[in-house]
Amino acid sequence: MRNTKVVSLEEAIRRSGLKDGMTISFHHHFRGGDKVVNMVVAKLAEMGFKDLKLAASSLSDVHAPLIEHIKNGVITGISTSGLRGELANEISHGLMDEPVVFRSHGGRGSAIANGELHIDVAFLGASSCDELGNASGCPRSENAKSICGSLGYALPDAKYADHVVVLTDDLVDYPNVPKSISACEVESVVVVDSVGDSSKISSGAIRDSKNPRDILLAQQAAKVIINSGYFEDGFSIQTGTGGASLAAVKYIRESMIEKGIKASFALGGITAHMVKLHEEGLIGRLIDVQSFDKVAAESIASDQLHQEVSAVEYASADNPGSAVHALDIVILSALEVDVDFNVNVLVGSDGIIRGAVGGHPDTAEDSALSIIVCPLLRGRIPCVVPKVTTLITPGAGVDVVVTEYGIAVNPRRPEIADRLKAAGLKVVDIHDLAAKATSVIGVPDPLPFGDKVVGIVMDRHGKVLDKIYNIVD
Amino acid sequence: MRNTKVVSLEEAIRRSGLKDGMTISFHHHFRGGDKVVNMVVAKLAEMGFKDLKLAASSLSDVHAPLIEHIKNGVITGISTSGLRGELANEISHGLMDEPVVFRSHGGRGSAIANGELHIDVAFLGASSCDELGNASGCPRSENAKSICGSLGYALPDAKYADHVVVLTDDLVDYPNVPKSISACEVESVVVVDSVGDSSKISSGAIRDSKNPRDILLAQQAAKVIINSGYFEDGFSIQTGTGGASLAAVKYIRESMIEKGIKASFALGGITAHMVKLHEEGLIGRLIDVQSFDKVAAESIASDQLHQEVSAVEYASADNPGSAVHALDIVILSALEVDVDFNVNVLVGSDGIIRGAVGGHPDTAEDSALSIIVCPLLRGRIPCVVPKVTTLITPGAGVDVVVTEYGIAVNPRRPEIADRLKAAGLKVVDIHDLAAKATSVIGVPDPLPFGDKVVGIVMDRHGKVLDKIYNIVD
Repeated sequence: MRNTKVVSLEEAIRRSGLKDGMTISFHHHFRGGDKVVNMVVAKLAEMGFKDLKLAASSLSDVHAPLIEHIKNGVITGISTSGLRGELANEISHGLMDEPVVFRSHGGRGSAIANGELHIDVAFLGASSCDELGNASGCPRSENAKSICGSLGYALPDAKYADHVVVLTDDLVDYPNVPKSISACEVESVVVVDSVGDSSKISSGAIRDSKNPRDILLAQQAAKVIINSGYFEDGFSIQTGTGGASLAAVKYIRESMIEKGIKASFALGGITAHMVKLHEEGLIGRLIDVQSFDKVAAESIASDQLHQEVSAVEYASADNPGSAVHALDIVILSALEVDVDFNVNVLVGSDGIIRGAVGGHPDTAEDSALSIIVCPLLRGRIPCVVPKVTTLITPGAGVDVVVTEYGIAVNPRRPEIADRLKAAGLKVVDIHDLAAKATSVIGVPDPLPFGDKVVGIVMDRHGKVLDKIYNIVD
Repeated sequence: MRNTKVVSLEEAIRRSGLKDGMTISFHHHFRGGDKVVNMVVAKLAEMGFKDLKLAASSLSDVHAPLIEHIKNGVITGISTSGLRGELANEISHGLMDEPVVFRSHGGRGSAIANGELHIDVAFLGASSCDELGNASGCPRSENAKSICGSLGYALPDAKYADHVVVLTDDLVDYPNVPKSISACEVESVVVVDSVGDSSKISSGAIRDSKNPRDILLAQQAAKVIINSGYFEDGFSIQTGTGGASLAAVKYIRESMIEKGIKASFALGGITAHMVKLHEEGLIGRLIDVQSFDKVAAESIASDQLHQEVSAVEYASADNPGSAVHALDIVILSALEVDVDFNVNVLVGSDGIIRGAVGGHPDTAEDSALSIIVCPLLRGRIPCVVPKVTTLITPGAGVDVVVTEYGIAVNPRRPEIADRLKAAGLKVVDIHDLAAKATSVIGVPDPLPFGDKVVGIVMDRHGKVLDKIYNIVD
């Protein structure tokens, strides 16, 4: 190659023109297995950078080393969809002077596209890349060390960042085809030992549940879908990563076969469950912003009907071409849902950040039917509450809440309540669910919040939706 | 679909905010079969628009109806790669007050990307499109009426135009997967009877030659390649659409098989010839900015290793990620080549425009080895001349000229001349070729050019390279 872009990480950083105070970005397609954030920030710290703003599509347990970099002033700002583990715990207790900015996946895409979130240098991990920068989350040689499938959350960064560095653990012959990130968007390519541990892309939030309560909730959710009026040939669906949400797919599948109904597409984070239905011919297309497990990642590598989309194409609020605008049904989970159908998926009932905004508000708002599946109680913790600890998804976009004690339908959607009642489902008032939770465990003490703002929740339209205060204990 | 973008052409134009004086754009993937330009401009004329600037990726014989629209003041400016037929003839005789601006494919991509060529409204034909605007040059239903394959030249328009209208003759169910143009880039979708006659995409410049002189030239070109020093495992190649250029592929193929050499990729306009070599395993990847025939279009529809690229990704001069930067060998044709190795592929020796800049200057400049194949004479017309009528590809990027009277090597590449001589090929001085042409047909009379500038040739870096004057006869 006459004009290779391959350089060391240090040289890539030097060429990027990165300066103190600038914004660096990362994707989270390797989820709990990500190695890029820690590697790059350690190098930036070693090179003496300070006051950097870290714009990740999400962060998780594995990013605890950022705590030291925050204490040392290397990282002074964070924006992300999610935060978990020790980093989240420390931030909840007031680690940072500047609040963490939380955005939905669609909201982050829009903010990058409209310039509200300007990225100076993007550091994007890829499972294969050639010397000019054509990059993919799919392996392309016998030397491949990783696979993450869709690079959907990295695509806005690649398109809009001033400078793009691709890190890869498999430098392949030019041209790397098909590409997810175009060489025309990439300034430098850095070869590293590992960009991520692919065995961990299905870790964290995603799990198959054998919990009897999850199975009950899944059956109820499936019944809601089947009787909602939206379960007809050509419908489209997205499921979250909660156990009940995934289990619901199993029951929907049975009904699809029984009634001869096929879905036009499944959207969002794609799991092995959806790949199976697609391969069975029950789902026409998979529209994949994030491959949630290795089966999904392997499918996107080989199946032309399994389409990678960017976060903007997935869920941008202000782009009428984004796929959520064509989405019929979404099943979502919740940490808390309140009597106004507002949902919290970010902050635990102990006031500590332990989740992710994800595509929750995006899909809830734009889908024709959004269904929240959650137990009334998790141990001693109520999930249906008078008021959510933190507002993530406004109730205006939430249609149905499924619990093991009944199904609450948003009063804004009386036609859906009528259909569910007609099908013999137990439709209840959400206030009664909240009252039941209170009657079991009593009124919890108020959380010991301080007066320091540690997090700001932006809605998907770019406005401040809620603030998270530090927890004192 | 809750938010369909499907409207009539008139409504799409109205919604676009198009105003007199603005720039509209088109692609030429249907080549001689294109129906979009004439249809849209007729509608714009009917709606009373005036003084529009037409930015096409290329124009051909089929666009003769533009003559009337130019006379009527609907179209007052044109930029294009090529111009042929009656429209070209009229323009050569001074039809327009504003000179036509000619750019190479890479130059047009760069000009759109850097804002030099600002497109207000793009009208892009597609063989399939869904209601949100996900569009493709590939058919996707049993109702499909057309196929053009790669939409490479339309991709910069889709990305950078202020407003994008997709015209399609097959509206398919959402989501149209895989997409070439994203719904997120499209404002309106217009369903029409036909966007183009696919049987004509291989018309015009592309032909398989049985001409004995072409076959001789092809054999010579193949020998040049094989002995150039660049014919080794992993080499890359692009061929033009001339008969000799295409025929050369046949001889190169034989040598590849004989020597066990495989190419990493073929670039540019992709033909059935290249698809065949790819399917035989002789070429690893096809990087396709334009499918030159139906076989190529069908291949890109089904083969993941046959990659669509945009004009920018193909041949942008100022983007180091564009594929021409990785190109080893290109075989090109010429109307004229002069003693300084400058090439003209646009203006006939009668001074009338009858060709296209295409990717000629892009590939000549950035490839490691550029080979021009042309006869010394075409009938009474000399092809090797003291000075080209119009400068399209500067001689600095041209390495070898193959004629039936010998092979001239640019003095800037003495190592190549040495290799060809060592292989027993007849290497001659280009001045001797020009002198031979003159000795056969004499010195032609000077062309009867007037003093009106009818065309401006931009080089691929955005500077004026040459001017074309009106012809008087």
